[in-house]
Amino acid sequence: MSNPPEAPGRREAVAGVRAEVSRRGVLYGGAAAVAGVMATAGRATAAQAGSTADGGTAVEAFHGPHQAGIATRPQAHAVFLGLDLRRGADRDSVSRMMRLLTDDARRLTQGRPALADTEPDLAALPARLTVTFGFGPGLFAAVGGGPGRTPPVKDLPAFKIDKLEERWSGGDLLVQICADDPLTVAHALRMIVKDVRSFATVRWTQRGFRRAAHTQRPELTQRNVMGQLDGTVNPAPGTPDFERAVWITGGGPLHGGTTLVLRRIRAELESWDAADVVAKEFTVGRRLDTGAPLTGRQEHDEPDFARLTAAGLPMISEYAHIRRARVEDPGMRIFRRVYNYDEGVSAGGTADSGLIFASYQADIDRQFVPVQRRLAEADLLNEWTTPIGSAVFAVPPGCGPDGWIGQSLLA
Amino acid sequence: MSNPPEAPGRREAVAGVRAEVSRRGVLYGGAAAVAGVMATAGRATAAQAGSTADGGTAVEAFHGPHQAGIATRPQAHAVFLGLDLRRGADRDSVSRMMRLLTDDARRLTQGRPALADTEPDLAALPARLTVTFGFGPGLFAAVGGGPGRTPPVKDLPAFKIDKLEERWSGGDLLVQICADDPLTVAHALRMIVKDVRSFATVRWTQRGFRRAAHTQRPELTQRNVMGQLDGTVNPAPGTPDFERAVWITGGGPLHGGTTLVLRRIRAELESWDAADVVAKEFTVGRRLDTGAPLTGRQEHDEPDFARLTAAGLPMISEYAHIRRARVEDPGMRIFRRVYNYDEGVSAGGTADSGLIFASYQADIDRQFVPVQRRLAEADLLNEWTTPIGSAVFAVPPGCGPDGWIGQSLLA
Repeated sequence: MSNPPEAPGRREAVAGVRAEVSRRGVLYGGAAAVAGVMATAGRATAAQAGSTADGGTAVEAFHGPHQAGIATRPQAHAVFLGLDLRRGADRDSVSRMMRLLTDDARRLTQGRPALADTEPDLAALPARLTVTFGFGPGLFAAVGGGPGRTPPVKDLPAFKIDKLEERWSGGDLLVQICADDPLTVAHALRMIVKDVRSFATVRWTQRGFRRAAHTQRPELTQRNVMGQLDGTVNPAPGTPDFERAVWITGGGPLHGGTTLVLRRIRAELESWDAADVVAKEFTVGRRLDTGAPLTGRQEHDEPDFARLTAAGLPMISEYAHIRRARVEDPGMRIFRRVYNYDEGVSAGGTADSGLIFASYQADIDRQFVPVQRRLAEADLLNEWTTPIGSAVFAVPPGCGPDGWIGQSLLA
Repeated sequence: MSNPPEAPGRREAVAGVRAEVSRRGVLYGGAAAVAGVMATAGRATAAQAGSTADGGTAVEAFHGPHQAGIATRPQAHAVFLGLDLRRGADRDSVSRMMRLLTDDARRLTQGRPALADTEPDLAALPARLTVTFGFGPGLFAAVGGGPGRTPPVKDLPAFKIDKLEERWSGGDLLVQICADDPLTVAHALRMIVKDVRSFATVRWTQRGFRRAAHTQRPELTQRNVMGQLDGTVNPAPGTPDFERAVWITGGGPLHGGTTLVLRRIRAELESWDAADVVAKEFTVGRRLDTGAPLTGRQEHDEPDFARLTAAGLPMISEYAHIRRARVEDPGMRIFRRVYNYDEGVSAGGTADSGLIFASYQADIDRQFVPVQRRLAEADLLNEWTTPIGSAVFAVPPGCGPDGWIGQSLLA
């Protein structure tokens, strides 16, 4: 083999570029950690990107009191990676694993190659990449906690609407990878999987998408594959309601963390498509086009649940989705960060589509479960949606430049 | 059921918006058809979109001498849908099918709902949607052509590197759906599948992606999942070389059309990742970071295939990919419009990644086959890539506002 003679010089040039990217990453990360403004960092960096073709260099801070990828304005693409620890995993091995994965995430999110990056050039365009880690019940069982110690998350109770499939459920470790660019997601996934596989096996991967970053203004609610404006009532990052609804407090090892319920919800598009607009809107309690409640004119009008039709019936049905999902106290709501999925089409033309429903909340039992119970009991929308996957994770707090994710729980 | 009382008024408002969108669509479409400038229409409309968040309304012209989606600047997302005609299909039924699908494509690409659109609100953001149709050998067999008439496309010869799988190969009808937004692609796919399924069954769907539209400047060559700058040597739409390489001439029913070879090429990332940079660059004949030929400094420098190393060996190996793929006459080159794919990860962490290699050329036998033969014989890159799917299609010319795709072949 003849080696290209100029390779060494070129390598130095590459190192220079990398150092520059790295320095910028540290500046972003440091500033955000100090100011504690991770929730708004996304907007700032996206604006700095300037032109329609520079979104690739936009960076989300990695360091801070909370992990990125939750309060972060949702990126267009996500892959949720569910892993099972290999036999014999213990506190030591899980700690080693999390040190390694934190290092990968710290580098990749700032546009720097992972330590053993085999395609380093793909790391140069992070496109607001975030990598977020969650610990499932099995991880807590593996690392132990002393007799009688309750793990911070447990499997959800069974709901009668569930038709859960093993292949989309459970998992000891979650890695949520989000970016505004699909190639960035593919590369980060590849690097994470390579580094984690001596510690864990892949249980499932779930890929999701939202509108592309440049498709519509970020403050607008997006539609899902069923055509609904999805997420109108959602605590807004940066508000006190959001802080109260999402972040765990109390000073324990999960202080600054949260919990994630990840549900895979199949859309029964065949029958949904067969329903007419009036039936769909009656089901949801909102207009399909504007997203306004049936008692209002604008998307963000408060629904008037007491209002009756001329015939004396509730204008928003007792079984309409928005009534069943309603939580009066904004600080007790769940925070939804929802993606669509759309996989292969059957020979007969049936879509395999739906929602990857990521729900973050400080307390699953007090926030998620009551809503889910009400929906499972009687929500008209159940006719057109089927939960086929379910997993729960404790999401550790963020870390600083010298720390690693999970340190407060494992070290 | 209580019906929302304001629905009728709202419906009128929706109709007004739709008419506006429709009118704009006609203006775009009409202007492009008259001027015959489809190759550059994408850039014009993207620029008109103006801000980073208005890419959703950008429109590619549908009408013109050629189908859109070929000379069109590649959109970020694609799904290739391979279909088999149902038993008993004939010229009449295929013509009806193509009239229906043309109508769907004409509407959806211009931001208007399909005629029987069940999620009309999802149609409002076309994000440069194109829908392109191709006819496989089986379609020509079904519609007949008189005894002794040679169909315009036939299956490729076997290549020794191929490990083709049925599930990614063949097909009577291709629908290529591309847009800069993944939800737009999902909706268009759903509408097309619903309308086609009384005529055909789904054989395969292949989903691919490139960099998001706002990630990097469109004139820059993109990287693929292997980290290579992919497509440096490619005829440029709008140039005489492109016109000669891609469009069929001669005044027959395919005049203004082309052919498509669609290959699914698995990237053997495990071994590729194990190779060092020097070996990878020797294989390709280019630097990984800049894409420059090993004899040059810039990506677009002409490779100097005669240049030797100090040891007297060719600097670009006899078996390097760029030497084997080389076609001297630019008008005889193939036109590549390549997407990445990245599917589920195995339990052990092996990626299912690679390229959806869409090659357009006026003449498969004279342009595609000779290059593919040279590559199959001896291309160092074969060690790291495996063709697992293959299909060929004749791509009919475009049509005007009163016509339909395939009319010149079927009517």
